[in-house]
Amino acid sequence: MYATPVSNLIDELSKMPGIGPKSAQRLAFYLLKASQEDAQKLAEAIVHLKETVKFCPVCYNVTDEPECEFCADTHRDDTIICVVEEANDIVSMEKTGEYRGRYHVLGGAISPIDGIGPDDLRIKELLKRLEGDEVAEIIVATNPNIEGEATGMYLAKLIKPLGVTVTRLASGLPIGGDLEYADEVTLGSALKGRREI
Amino acid sequence: MYATPVSNLIDELSKMPGIGPKSAQRLAFYLLKASQEDAQKLAEAIVHLKETVKFCPVCYNVTDEPECEFCADTHRDDTIICVVEEANDIVSMEKTGEYRGRYHVLGGAISPIDGIGPDDLRIKELLKRLEGDEVAEIIVATNPNIEGEATGMYLAKLIKPLGVTVTRLASGLPIGGDLEYADEVTLGSALKGRREI
Repeated sequence: MYATPVSNLIDELSKMPGIGPKSAQRLAFYLLKASQEDAQKLAEAIVHLKETVKFCPVCYNVTDEPECEFCADTHRDDTIICVVEEANDIVSMEKTGEYRGRYHVLGGAISPIDGIGPDDLRIKELLKRLEGDEVAEIIVATNPNIEGEATGMYLAKLIKPLGVTVTRLASGLPIGGDLEYADEVTLGSALKGRREI
Repeated sequence: MYATPVSNLIDELSKMPGIGPKSAQRLAFYLLKASQEDAQKLAEAIVHLKETVKFCPVCYNVTDEPECEFCADTHRDDTIICVVEEANDIVSMEKTGEYRGRYHVLGGAISPIDGIGPDDLRIKELLKRLEGDEVAEIIVATNPNIEGEATGMYLAKLIKPLGVTVTRLASGLPIGGDLEYADEVTLGSALKGRREI
């Protein structure tokens, strides 16, 4: 019913999260009407993203520099590491304006049902960062759902014997929700009220 | 707070309709995690769309052939033309399975508030298609809102003197809505119950 290049684009757009067939159709027809320049810029931004963005070798945030801005920043507190599931969770934490320590991105949460075990996350890399006694506290800022809580418990069991305090974001975040959608105030108060696991 | 290529892509994604900053962030981070191949395919589909898709010279549907499939199809009824605002409205009409005539895409609706007058739409091109006495009926399938109704009235005033019947999709479509989101059954019954303007 659509010209092949149109249905092609609709198929590709539909693969993205939250984009159903109707949204994909709407976006495809928007791009048909958009200027050549706008469409070109979008396509180039996608290609450029995949070409230039790599993982930070320290914390596994995404970056186009040798180290990410939070690891390269000499004014941050080295004694505290905030552990998040995904790189975009760092942005949510930064928006609270309450945190000046370092980060570590796990790349997900423990979820046996999805076949994700501790070895699939960057936990070894986190433990390596704890060598040298500089770090005094790990804040577990995984999502407030079953997988996130399980990951927090697992990390606490591993890290507490090393003499490092392990804390968890305070409840106040709605359970079952997603860290990405928390508003800054809620997330900020959850950060302040964090409790030891 | 984001690496430049990431915030760049978020900016470009946010330009699309229905994509706010949060959705754009989500999509950008999805693309970061997606395979190189998937991201490449999406970027190529966008570029390919703009390179190959042109307007059909007869009805102004979008197509990558010399004529669109509805104009090229020799089994369709030449005596009846369905006039729609946008090319994607053709897909909605086709999904009803109730229509076997031709189409004409206006490229919008008369809307003085947006500075869109009759001369900005493909009305001259429609009148040209009525030369030769082959067409007996024009179905006005513009959106059931003020602009769509005004466009229908304008077309009726121009076309009825030529001896061509002008009909309008039956009420049954929710007024103030958008043709694109009507379900097939409602749209099909609206097509059957169309009334002369």
